[in-house]
Amino acid sequence: MIIRIVGSGLLGTSLGLALSKDHEIQLVDASPIMAALAEDLGAGKQASEESTAPDLVIVATPPDVAADMVNDALSSFPQAIVTDVASVKNIVVAEVEGGKERYVGSHPMAGRERSGAIAADGDLFIGRPWVVVPHETTIPSAVALIKQIAMEVGAFPVEMTAEAHDAAVARVSHVPQLMSSLLAATLTEATPTSLDLAGQGLRDVTRIASSDAKLWSTIIAGNPGPVSTILKDIRTRLDGLIDGVDRMVTEDSYAGVSEVAKVVSDGNVGVSRIPGKHGGAPMRYATVTVLVPDKPGELGRLFTETGEIGANIEDLTLEHSRAQPVGRAAIAVNPSQARPLADGLEERGWTVASVEMEEN
Amino acid sequence: MIIRIVGSGLLGTSLGLALSKDHEIQLVDASPIMAALAEDLGAGKQASEESTAPDLVIVATPPDVAADMVNDALSSFPQAIVTDVASVKNIVVAEVEGGKERYVGSHPMAGRERSGAIAADGDLFIGRPWVVVPHETTIPSAVALIKQIAMEVGAFPVEMTAEAHDAAVARVSHVPQLMSSLLAATLTEATPTSLDLAGQGLRDVTRIASSDAKLWSTIIAGNPGPVSTILKDIRTRLDGLIDGVDRMVTEDSYAGVSEVAKVVSDGNVGVSRIPGKHGGAPMRYATVTVLVPDKPGELGRLFTETGEIGANIEDLTLEHSRAQPVGRAAIAVNPSQARPLADGLEERGWTVASVEMEEN
Repeated sequence: MIIRIVGSGLLGTSLGLALSKDHEIQLVDASPIMAALAEDLGAGKQASEESTAPDLVIVATPPDVAADMVNDALSSFPQAIVTDVASVKNIVVAEVEGGKERYVGSHPMAGRERSGAIAADGDLFIGRPWVVVPHETTIPSAVALIKQIAMEVGAFPVEMTAEAHDAAVARVSHVPQLMSSLLAATLTEATPTSLDLAGQGLRDVTRIASSDAKLWSTIIAGNPGPVSTILKDIRTRLDGLIDGVDRMVTEDSYAGVSEVAKVVSDGNVGVSRIPGKHGGAPMRYATVTVLVPDKPGELGRLFTETGEIGANIEDLTLEHSRAQPVGRAAIAVNPSQARPLADGLEERGWTVASVEMEEN
Repeated sequence: MIIRIVGSGLLGTSLGLALSKDHEIQLVDASPIMAALAEDLGAGKQASEESTAPDLVIVATPPDVAADMVNDALSSFPQAIVTDVASVKNIVVAEVEGGKERYVGSHPMAGRERSGAIAADGDLFIGRPWVVVPHETTIPSAVALIKQIAMEVGAFPVEMTAEAHDAAVARVSHVPQLMSSLLAATLTEATPTSLDLAGQGLRDVTRIASSDAKLWSTIIAGNPGPVSTILKDIRTRLDGLIDGVDRMVTEDSYAGVSEVAKVVSDGNVGVSRIPGKHGGAPMRYATVTVLVPDKPGELGRLFTETGEIGANIEDLTLEHSRAQPVGRAAIAVNPSQARPLADGLEERGWTVASVEMEEN
């Protein structure tokens, strides 16, 4: 098949790398330098005037120009199926004009979009959801083709409407990004001494706050309705929380404490709904926390010995101490393996700091 | 020295374990079963009527009863230095009565407080800050003694006023907890399909939202003033953000996008202020992401070979794919080590998904 990829950023170049062994890939980018870079990386060959018309066009540009590129492709190649991989879908489908039946939106949930061709890799999509978004008049063969492409690069296709997609990513991606940013923004006013007390919790909650402001502005501008709805829900909850906390300040009583308890316990319920590893209901894990000297090879030894003891690591977080050359590795395992793992590691000379059962 | 520890939860029992080799530890708990459990674990011996008067009393109870326990200790043992380890400090010092000069507040920034004696470990404090909070009339020898205790258990003492402490923990701990809970609470309304699209970002931001509601209600109730101030700052920012997003909905223009850009870029600045490993300015790392088959021993092999290549792992996150038996290990290393690590791993047959430079 002949596939034209428009846009040589992280996603476009990664798709070229993944698809070029079985297909002829034509690369196009507004910047000829970027297209040349993608070609050098092995993602395909730059398109020219003489290129054969493609069977499939994949538009991998920023969301605010995706619809224009889709329209160009639909009119230039009247036989081709056309898709785009923008992270918002309603605005694209709304602006598609002639040949609309050959257009199907899609959104591979992969990678960080900010990193450009140089960070591209053909394995970027392995094990990720790839949302396929047909509209009312999309022909079934277009849907089937994009699902096939998704599976060829190792992703698993998930079919949704544009409305359902945009509402879903508002909830699981766009609003979480904004909440992390809002919290991190308050740290601009923190004293250095207070920041010295920062623990792993703050680091977790603000990790994605380092994301690119320009990219995120474009994404939110492409999905303002669903984002606004959820932000207003949060404002209502925040108002209730502030009322409760203020009542504890002004009335010097515990009257407002129920508002705090409500927010935290609603949060318990919400976080427990995030699917666990491999989908399905979240599993209960036990966490064994081990102190690890901060030198090369120690983590390797820890995990080799964890394997020898027969425990399978379900999840892992590493936390570094601020002032001492020691890290803490929190190893999540099946609860039945926690005690044997902790005992086995202590026998081998490791210091186990704690064994805890997860609450969800 | 004779040390009496009041409260046999995670912190009290861990302190007993850490201090019992060099000191005589007396254990007291409102629940005789909990005190017996701590004794069984090796944290000291239960106090009795015949016990010698202690030189130091450490109150390790929930924050809402800490002041009462401190007052009991100051009046029962007129020669003893008394401290408490509650996570809020102003409310305790405000309620201390007779013998106040022998009281000094403290707060070891260690562990999860919800886990009880059974999760206790004497190494819990290693490499953590231990905030020491003298008030106006605290005698210098009391401050010196608590700093010594902090260092004996491996922590590093940081001296602050109660006001500075409570403001700092509001910013780096209490409000981050509430923001994570507020976001997670909105997931109670998410469709299961949308939750299937959840990525690592959502998991990071909501990880601490599984914390105990009762404990957090008590903590916030002990520090409502500083928490309220920061929550109101967030509400102001959130109002601006909602206005911007709504302008994009109603005026169908990009006029409001600057509000989004402002929140995300202020967040960039804030998160970049969190100290890096071992304190000091945050370091720049590069992240090498490697696909890891999900079976015992593979992570061990990965890290052993990472050590062989000579790279030191500065940080690590593990992400699991939803539907496939493969995980992604994101290994943060010194930027100069990233390319040799990626090349070395590929030579050894690993699949490197990406090599990225961190933005901060």
